[in-house]
Amino acid sequence: LNPFASVSGSDSEVRVASAGGGYPVLVESSGLRRLPELLLRYAPGHRYAVVSDDNVGPLYGRPAMDACRRAGLAADLFEFPAGERHKTRETWSALTDRMLEAGLGRDCTVVAVGGGVTGDLAGFVAATFMRGVPVVQVPTTLVAMVDASIGGKTGVDTRAGKNLVGAFHAPRLVLADPEALGTLPERERAQGLVEAMKHGAIYDALYLEELVRETVPLLAGEPGASRAAVLRSVQIKAHVVGEDELEGGFRQVLNFGHTYGHALETESSYEMGHGQAVAWGMILEARLGERMGITHAGTAERLERALAQVGFGSPRIPPGGRARIVDLLLADKKARAGVVRFVLLRRVGEVARGEGWSHAAPANLVREVVDQVPAPG
Amino acid sequence: LNPFASVSGSDSEVRVASAGGGYPVLVESSGLRRLPELLLRYAPGHRYAVVSDDNVGPLYGRPAMDACRRAGLAADLFEFPAGERHKTRETWSALTDRMLEAGLGRDCTVVAVGGGVTGDLAGFVAATFMRGVPVVQVPTTLVAMVDASIGGKTGVDTRAGKNLVGAFHAPRLVLADPEALGTLPERERAQGLVEAMKHGAIYDALYLEELVRETVPLLAGEPGASRAAVLRSVQIKAHVVGEDELEGGFRQVLNFGHTYGHALETESSYEMGHGQAVAWGMILEARLGERMGITHAGTAERLERALAQVGFGSPRIPPGGRARIVDLLLADKKARAGVVRFVLLRRVGEVARGEGWSHAAPANLVREVVDQVPAPG
Repeated sequence: LNPFASVSGSDSEVRVASAGGGYPVLVESSGLRRLPELLLRYAPGHRYAVVSDDNVGPLYGRPAMDACRRAGLAADLFEFPAGERHKTRETWSALTDRMLEAGLGRDCTVVAVGGGVTGDLAGFVAATFMRGVPVVQVPTTLVAMVDASIGGKTGVDTRAGKNLVGAFHAPRLVLADPEALGTLPERERAQGLVEAMKHGAIYDALYLEELVRETVPLLAGEPGASRAAVLRSVQIKAHVVGEDELEGGFRQVLNFGHTYGHALETESSYEMGHGQAVAWGMILEARLGERMGITHAGTAERLERALAQVGFGSPRIPPGGRARIVDLLLADKKARAGVVRFVLLRRVGEVARGEGWSHAAPANLVREVVDQVPAPG
Repeated sequence: LNPFASVSGSDSEVRVASAGGGYPVLVESSGLRRLPELLLRYAPGHRYAVVSDDNVGPLYGRPAMDACRRAGLAADLFEFPAGERHKTRETWSALTDRMLEAGLGRDCTVVAVGGGVTGDLAGFVAATFMRGVPVVQVPTTLVAMVDASIGGKTGVDTRAGKNLVGAFHAPRLVLADPEALGTLPERERAQGLVEAMKHGAIYDALYLEELVRETVPLLAGEPGASRAAVLRSVQIKAHVVGEDELEGGFRQVLNFGHTYGHALETESSYEMGHGQAVAWGMILEARLGERMGITHAGTAERLERALAQVGFGSPRIPPGGRARIVDLLLADKKARAGVVRFVLLRRVGEVARGEGWSHAAPANLVREVVDQVPAPG
């Protein structure tokens, strides 16, 4: 049952079920070196468009293009400016136009090399280029490996909010090379670790324990521990999205921690990192569930201890922020008639079934939980 | 076998097979009056976004919205400026933003009321709004009824060409009300008739004969003849796209007439109408097929007589245009090493199987066919 013991070789393949027949996620140390042969096998194209941001481009995008060319594949690199604020329709348009100018046609394959922004953006380019060309996801961050690269969600942000424009477009292949994690700032790995802990919280209590035990090597990007965590998270995420590709039901369990989390993030005008927001969101949603009599007592505290290990501390909201957070939750499109829906745990490792997979929480309890969060230090 | 005799009642339903389970095309006189109940049945939404251009909006878009509201549905009208030159990412962005500002969410349904541009554009909005919401296609032109509204192709143009950005997004329902055709200019009906004749040319010789016989009432928008033609074309198109939703193979038979046609259109800087271009394209592709020994002798002449009935006359190319047309064909992305691929007829009513459903034509024959077209006047 120990996920860290179950990884024998250095290569592992997890299959994701999908309407188009499914696709493999390869978790493979030094897998990047095999990229050209994997492209030929899983996504043979007349030409390849490698898409990276200008941080990852020099590190992994250009080497990927060079390796393809050495292997005799026609490949070009298309870079865009790094950062969530460039995950827009404008960047999507510009990438599309540059690919058209380069003469790429219906028989090209897009290769997304980078973090979550790159995967979402390049995936949306692929989803809409000549009504859809194949995409291969090559995540190079922990968040992208354990979460964003799997499940076929692609899209961009608009002024009205994040990911409001996009498409479901399953990749042909996801290639996660844990060796790439060494080049990241620790802050990024911490954020990825929060998403991995979320997988433990909703599905596998033992996995959460292991992650707590291995926090130090994981934060350091140590390859063995990283490979094991990526693999277990990929298994869990693949299982969830394979059950519910288009997010009608079960897939929403992945939103645990994200309802309060999203409001915290928005209230801070995105000064708060996504990992921090989701960490606190999970704790607050466990407190809410306990208050509603759905989540076993002690669950919130257990999550709080786990997330403290990663360095996110306990929830804090500046004075004045509380009312805005409650307003954001109650004004949300998904909130109807003052009722907000949350994914709630039964206990660590198990989501409580409600009406579908979420529960209507009364406005007064939603507010109480927020009101009892202390102000920062 | 007479398609015009096979329509007994006033309502007819044709089912289109699709990965998502398929959808009905209703060919129904006065069907527009039933729109609200049909929306509730086939695409129940929390709110409805009716999308029309500013020509069709006052005629059919606003009445559709009003009818929905009277029936108790929450509906809003979103208009955009009419014309192919507005079928762009900019218009798509603006429509999306206006829907977001109006507070529409994941539980809305888009209702595209209009011609081919509206169907493509509103379909692409629906395909990408919050990663995809349902769309109902309500075609009001003959071209859209017999062709564009069926098959799930959506998209917009870019400076590099038409329909280069888009997605496959099957509608929940297509509702074609032949009574709407009476409000069109005859020129539009002529263009639709060319696409209908193409259906006869590739699949049903008797249907082509009937269309020739009924050209006068069809050009006049006479409801009985229109309903019969729309229904038979819908049956043929539904069969073809049902066999090959994502255009890997059989669906390309619908491109008959469109290879030369597209080059004619581009050479004229789109001064030439699409119907005219496809009419002449079919004749030239029949001539090419005869020259290659694939198409039975006399086929081109038979098509020429049929299309002359619609008023498109015989192919003419201005001096100087011939070389540009050949260049366009040979420079096309689909052309490799001086070979252009064409869908070719065996005879009227039957496409000749080649390598898949198209044939490589040698450059010298492609040129010869163009060189022998006389100049205008």
